[in-house]
Amino acid sequence: MKASVGPSHGTAHVAVPFSAVRLEDGLWARRQEAVRLHTVPFLYAQYEKNGLFEALDVDAPPGPLRIPFNGRPNTAVMYWDSDIAKWIETASYSLVACPDPALEARIDDLIARIAAAQRPDGYFNSYFIRREPAKRWTNLRDWHELYCAGHLIEAAVAHVQATGKRTLLEVVQRQADDIARVFGPGPGQRRGYCGHPEIELALVKLHRLTGERRYLDLAKFFIDERGRQPHCFDQEAIARGEDPARQYYGTYEYSQSHVPVREQRTVVGHAVRAMYLYSAMADLAGEFEDAGLMAACKALWRDLTTRRLYVTGGLGPSARNEGFTAGYDLPNETAYAETCAAVGLIFWAHRMLLVERDAHYADTLELALYNGALSGLSLDGERFFYDNPLASAGGHRRWTWHRCPCCPPNIGRLIASLGQYVYSTGPGELAVHLYVAGRARTAVSGVSVTLAQTTAYPWDGGVRLRIEPERAVEFALRVRVPGWCRAASLTINGASVDLAAVMDRGYAHLSRLWQGGDEVSLTLAMPAERIYANPQVVADIGQVALKRGPVVYCIEGADNEVAPHLVALPRGSAIEPRHETDLLSGVTVLSADALGVRAWADDELYATHPPATQPIRLRAVPYGFWSNRESETMRVWLREV
Amino acid sequence: MKASVGPSHGTAHVAVPFSAVRLEDGLWARRQEAVRLHTVPFLYAQYEKNGLFEALDVDAPPGPLRIPFNGRPNTAVMYWDSDIAKWIETASYSLVACPDPALEARIDDLIARIAAAQRPDGYFNSYFIRREPAKRWTNLRDWHELYCAGHLIEAAVAHVQATGKRTLLEVVQRQADDIARVFGPGPGQRRGYCGHPEIELALVKLHRLTGERRYLDLAKFFIDERGRQPHCFDQEAIARGEDPARQYYGTYEYSQSHVPVREQRTVVGHAVRAMYLYSAMADLAGEFEDAGLMAACKALWRDLTTRRLYVTGGLGPSARNEGFTAGYDLPNETAYAETCAAVGLIFWAHRMLLVERDAHYADTLELALYNGALSGLSLDGERFFYDNPLASAGGHRRWTWHRCPCCPPNIGRLIASLGQYVYSTGPGELAVHLYVAGRARTAVSGVSVTLAQTTAYPWDGGVRLRIEPERAVEFALRVRVPGWCRAASLTINGASVDLAAVMDRGYAHLSRLWQGGDEVSLTLAMPAERIYANPQVVADIGQVALKRGPVVYCIEGADNEVAPHLVALPRGSAIEPRHETDLLSGVTVLSADALGVRAWADDELYATHPPATQPIRLRAVPYGFWSNRESETMRVWLREV
Repeated sequence: MKASVGPSHGTAHVAVPFSAVRLEDGLWARRQEAVRLHTVPFLYAQYEKNGLFEALDVDAPPGPLRIPFNGRPNTAVMYWDSDIAKWIETASYSLVACPDPALEARIDDLIARIAAAQRPDGYFNSYFIRREPAKRWTNLRDWHELYCAGHLIEAAVAHVQATGKRTLLEVVQRQADDIARVFGPGPGQRRGYCGHPEIELALVKLHRLTGERRYLDLAKFFIDERGRQPHCFDQEAIARGEDPARQYYGTYEYSQSHVPVREQRTVVGHAVRAMYLYSAMADLAGEFEDAGLMAACKALWRDLTTRRLYVTGGLGPSARNEGFTAGYDLPNETAYAETCAAVGLIFWAHRMLLVERDAHYADTLELALYNGALSGLSLDGERFFYDNPLASAGGHRRWTWHRCPCCPPNIGRLIASLGQYVYSTGPGELAVHLYVAGRARTAVSGVSVTLAQTTAYPWDGGVRLRIEPERAVEFALRVRVPGWCRAASLTINGASVDLAAVMDRGYAHLSRLWQGGDEVSLTLAMPAERIYANPQVVADIGQVALKRGPVVYCIEGADNEVAPHLVALPRGSAIEPRHETDLLSGVTVLSADALGVRAWADDELYATHPPATQPIRLRAVPYGFWSNRESETMRVWLREV
Repeated sequence: MKASVGPSHGTAHVAVPFSAVRLEDGLWARRQEAVRLHTVPFLYAQYEKNGLFEALDVDAPPGPLRIPFNGRPNTAVMYWDSDIAKWIETASYSLVACPDPALEARIDDLIARIAAAQRPDGYFNSYFIRREPAKRWTNLRDWHELYCAGHLIEAAVAHVQATGKRTLLEVVQRQADDIARVFGPGPGQRRGYCGHPEIELALVKLHRLTGERRYLDLAKFFIDERGRQPHCFDQEAIARGEDPARQYYGTYEYSQSHVPVREQRTVVGHAVRAMYLYSAMADLAGEFEDAGLMAACKALWRDLTTRRLYVTGGLGPSARNEGFTAGYDLPNETAYAETCAAVGLIFWAHRMLLVERDAHYADTLELALYNGALSGLSLDGERFFYDNPLASAGGHRRWTWHRCPCCPPNIGRLIASLGQYVYSTGPGELAVHLYVAGRARTAVSGVSVTLAQTTAYPWDGGVRLRIEPERAVEFALRVRVPGWCRAASLTINGASVDLAAVMDRGYAHLSRLWQGGDEVSLTLAMPAERIYANPQVVADIGQVALKRGPVVYCIEGADNEVAPHLVALPRGSAIEPRHETDLLSGVTVLSADALGVRAWADDELYATHPPATQPIRLRAVPYGFWSNRESETMRVWLREV
């Protein structure tokens, strides 16, 4: 049994798994601790209160639906299994950081309930078993059966990796085998796929864990079928006696099923669906060395990162379709930029990185991680954002519960498993992608290697890597020089390395005989910078964002003399960083001399005189940490004068 | 039979009716002609095509519903009668400008069909008679029976005034008498009112036309009932077996029925409902000299004009409730600012003006007229805006038909009846509110007076008024000096008048013995000006709007070297007006030296270098005339540098 993330052959890398990477004192260790000590028990209590666990008791008569939505009971609870699965996944990761028998027992209990509810043929979806048994597999487009199955598979893989227990794995293998009987190209099988991609990437994980080829083939079947004509969603709608044209979002772009995936070149539709789909496409491109799939992935990546990505790494500007609109349409106040979408981008970027070994993917992964994803979770781990706007005039507050509770366990599982994004290995290579203090153990060229990383990143650009192979071994250490960095230096055991000579796709390629106690020291110049958007982005014209290293800043009402929208930053003002240990669990803040627009009388709405300004000292905090104080007003893009 | 608009006693003014005011060569005469020659026949054809007239045949079996809405047939056609009524009203006004026997016959035919469909007890609503007879008066909150009745009453009043025919009047009097039997405070009567105000102001019109006090009392009953507890919408919901809390917009603010009207101080909810309600409140405040009602009107007016009004006179920023949100929340790209709401504001302002005789109301009326309302109708009279944003990055296009076709006949009837907004009379007074070339006939102090107004307003600030009384008569001519004007001069028969000495609430109060051939000449300095918004308006910070006289300008892609959002206007640039006879049927354009932001490479989304600029010549056109060419991009607020 393998426990790796990444394609199983070729030159592609595999991630050093979360279970082999321990984070130590620093931003991410603290976020992991918040997830473990707060998010995990808090979500368990919320699920209990809102009836998610009760819904697993499929033999109990269905009670009244509980969650109100626009004043009506929310009937769309067919995705609750996925939230339970993401909780199991998050909790499983957390067990590795710190054994917790009570938590493990809770997980075991839930797994037992799921196993008890599973039908003899392997089918499992508590909603359809309990409430609509006759409707099983009748609406792949809108209902989330395969999506829920995918999340349960991901939970099972995490559970095995964290505990070694196969209880949930056995459930999901029976379930996946049932799905493989129902769906496929053979006689008597359904040609179809889920409206919400997810099971595809989960099946790749299941394949990598179990070595079973059939799961990979099923993932490939779902990917290959997507967008083919005659359209399976049309056909199932006709079978239900419905008009296929009358669907919730009106287009198949919504679920990225408008054309076969290999023909897709533009990022469209629901953002989370897109990210999960592209993640699976990247996985399969790597597994099958499928050039057509990889060409689609690269074109979609380029489209996303050059036309549709917020400066925070957030994505999907519109609440209407929870997703994408036109290129350069990146409004700030109304940005949807769902937490799950930024998490999904990290999944996709990670897979692209492992296949392509180009630091460009790691740069985007890091951008989303420190900004658009991190903003989704409060400092205390118990309040959440679904949408992550880049400006708020007040009124955008973190919540403790949501009718669609998908984001909390998604950001939870990302943070709890963050270790797996830090390192990867390939033939004769060990790559360092992220700078996170901690220790990892892996093997390169058949030799066990321990790495110790010491850094105060992202607040400081200094990183020390201590390499401890079991015995001296030759391999290439690939050390990422982030794309944002304009002046980096590197030493090995104190001796300078000519970086320009060893750079390869964003990595310093350090090939040598590594011995116990070798130390690589990387220094990344990290001045505060002004970022400008392409003038085609209407919302950002005449404005500037502040960034330092991978961290994007914002100004909050709490820190400034005037409301954020009243701040204007002169182009010549120096931006000064200062680390504040007591603020927001320790962050570096930026400050600068700026102008604040003075208030008018409340009853003067328009006038022929321009508003006056006064000198102020602007103070900016990392966007990923906003809305952790009383303040409600915030702005990433500042008017530059 | 009277034919006046305005309270029937006290010092309040009554409008000189549309039928006594003929517009001559100029902007409004041309807009009236477009309505008469294009909008009226075009809407008739559209109604016919979309089944609105067919729906009047209440004895025919109801066919399938035709108008698609989000892919489903639109079942909310209970308001179609109101659109037919507004067409009859518009067409009736048009008959006065130019007799048209064919059009008159079409009106007569429609009236005959309505009369034939009316129930013996007087009830008329073609939707409920034909489709849901058992549901008559069962949902005043959401269905539009009283609203439709109101529009039919307004149509009948216009029809009488235009043609002298009483055919429709007889229908609506039977209908109003039926409503007065059903609704009222007496035993066996319903205490209730319409979710969408409209019938209240219509009943005041019916009272003023017929002299019948009972219509005024019924209007007062509806106004007095509104917002009282126990809430009539709660009670009727319970009677239908529904939960009163489950309503479309969740709050009674939506229909301004959250508290009794005399307690209302904040403008809330659906904007058109608000404007129609406040119009009736102003009417009744005048009719009954009701200080409590007038205090509410004045507080609401202040709230609207100091916190919630776009610089264009548009109002109601949100599409969600088609209405109001928080104070100073005036987004530009997403501004809903429904055409009907600006038309409704003109109705309300006119009534406030007649009661209070303060030019402040005329200023707002004029602002909405030339900008936020006028923008709703294309130059050719056949394309319409429902929502009137103040910026468009493309994609906001005029349409020829809409599932809710309320706006076209609303802007149509406003323009066709524009004459009635120009002059008013009171005891010993004749007031000139608007500057519109044309001739009017009225009576002051019992003497018939003809006025001839010569002006190229709004493109030029010169106005000549020639007064021709039947015989010499002493009265006060009140000549409005617009609030936007900072330098006005006035002569009578060539002799200068010391304006400061005669100003009264925004009017030059010219009391004298007027004789045939007397001429008043008014000169209003009309430089182009920069307008700034209160810094609490987040959307407008750092930006400037251009205005000249009552006309607000915008820049369109069609006229400028760069897209509107790329234009930056230096604070020192001179704004130069120039009249262009061939452009948009003759408008004054503004131009200025400005900067245009240069494009970046398409694939560079963010960078550390600021975009470069190039000198350009900015060209701005009146906002009320935008989207009449191929251009789709537009912006009212320009970045000022």
